[in-house]
Amino acid sequence: MSDRTARRRVTRIRLPQDGAVEHQSPLVGERADLLAAEEPLGIRIAGQAVNLTMRTPGDDLDLAAGFLFTEGIVTSADQIAEIKLCDGTTCGHAGHDGLGNIVDIRLADGPAAGRLAAELAPRRNFMTTSACGVCGKAEAAAIFSANQWNLREDQTSIQATWLAAMPDRLRDAQRVFASTGGLHAAGAFSARGELLCVREDVGRHNAVDKVVGWALRAGRLPLRGCVLMVSGRASFELVQKAVLAGFPALAAVSAPSSLAADLAEQAGLTLVGFLRGGSMNVYTAAERVRAESSAATR
Amino acid sequence: MSDRTARRRVTRIRLPQDGAVEHQSPLVGERADLLAAEEPLGIRIAGQAVNLTMRTPGDDLDLAAGFLFTEGIVTSADQIAEIKLCDGTTCGHAGHDGLGNIVDIRLADGPAAGRLAAELAPRRNFMTTSACGVCGKAEAAAIFSANQWNLREDQTSIQATWLAAMPDRLRDAQRVFASTGGLHAAGAFSARGELLCVREDVGRHNAVDKVVGWALRAGRLPLRGCVLMVSGRASFELVQKAVLAGFPALAAVSAPSSLAADLAEQAGLTLVGFLRGGSMNVYTAAERVRAESSAATR
Repeated sequence: MSDRTARRRVTRIRLPQDGAVEHQSPLVGERADLLAAEEPLGIRIAGQAVNLTMRTPGDDLDLAAGFLFTEGIVTSADQIAEIKLCDGTTCGHAGHDGLGNIVDIRLADGPAAGRLAAELAPRRNFMTTSACGVCGKAEAAAIFSANQWNLREDQTSIQATWLAAMPDRLRDAQRVFASTGGLHAAGAFSARGELLCVREDVGRHNAVDKVVGWALRAGRLPLRGCVLMVSGRASFELVQKAVLAGFPALAAVSAPSSLAADLAEQAGLTLVGFLRGGSMNVYTAAERVRAESSAATR
Repeated sequence: MSDRTARRRVTRIRLPQDGAVEHQSPLVGERADLLAAEEPLGIRIAGQAVNLTMRTPGDDLDLAAGFLFTEGIVTSADQIAEIKLCDGTTCGHAGHDGLGNIVDIRLADGPAAGRLAAELAPRRNFMTTSACGVCGKAEAAAIFSANQWNLREDQTSIQATWLAAMPDRLRDAQRVFASTGGLHAAGAFSARGELLCVREDVGRHNAVDKVVGWALRAGRLPLRGCVLMVSGRASFELVQKAVLAGFPALAAVSAPSSLAADLAEQAGLTLVGFLRGGSMNVYTAAERVRAESSAATR
């Protein structure tokens, strides 16, 4: 856990509140403070840099595997022959500064690896598409043509009371948030509310990639019957990752965006927002959420 | 404002609270809900796609100009000869789906434009750097060698009481947040707490790019003597943008990351976190913040 936080000196200022004794001075003090660590992680395939992301150290192999999967570079765990932190031998620079911040990946031999390698060079910026047609519709088409699972086949039923309990369970499982206040969390829950995996990061997309990478490496994809819960807002990007991993439902503590709701609708993903304090908004595929009180169904 | 929000149907569920009448049923209702709009924005220079970002529509020219500046593609406003929303004539596809979601830019003629165009092709993914040396130190060096301003020369003095008032002023100026709960905000304040510019976006980096682009286009860079205030957390990326725009101070409602504090320290940027309810943490360059109460200095 130590490398997930970093200690820094801080000057803490507390101003007098309204109604405080007149002329009361502000409280000013110095102390040490724990911050969420943020460092770059480079991802290389066969020695070629394919991505650099700012992330919180920890679960780096999950993050790299999840990135490969959600970007469509691999579609199954067996396409990854080797995945490890750079030890300086691959790049010929033992002892360089980036040790611990680079993941080296070797894809399995065979036609897939050759095809993937050929695809990598021209698409180093995974978000940059060619000139025209950059619109929501085009994006959506690209995403769903790449998707392997049909979420509409997932008949999972989720009790609203179980959903309502997930934010507290996610928060309780966050190891770093309590000490820094600075990390997003993503968790995979069973539909009965059992927490299967929790991951933290300064970037919400990284926290989700870490969960997806965990599932890929553990042979648990697709995550049928499960709920992906995130601590912040639900963007287009998070819906995309949830769909690709086969989650039938995505729940967020805060607001979704319009495009998140549109993509969830098209994919048949249940999108829950503002999940807090016993209430929630279900934007799409609400038929999976059962709101009957457990008392009434007894 | 209409295209910054989108109306969607939502199923709202409110569970009975503890202590409610036994067997009380959950409240379930359908209604329309306003969501923050999220759509892709493509940025093209001389017809060549250089970036695609998911953003909230509005202030798109500011966003594109700010992106060009914070990515180091242009260093002054006069290097941009023309900047406009695609009208279908540039790409030869009048009436295509992306209209309104593409900004077309023409750089000023001269050696700069030629050099910039030549540089664009190999660095389409602006975050991907070459193989080794992907570490915080290398990143920091690259950032500060590109920086035009010396923040240490900025002797701005900022009263803690003015800082404490900024979050409420930022929130009051957010046009969309109140209705959707789903947008980040960034604001440029004078050191006396006057709000100069506020911009909103589903992505916090976009909100900041919109503020920087506003300043670039208004001839107000560098933003000496000003404070950049953001509604969320302070990451490495936001510190980088604040430094490049010449802000002597960055204030955030929530936590900074370790790398944000490290880069702020190296650049001489005053970094304020957890700015809420009359208290704040000053992580770096605290000498710019005056904590004396106004009563005591009379």
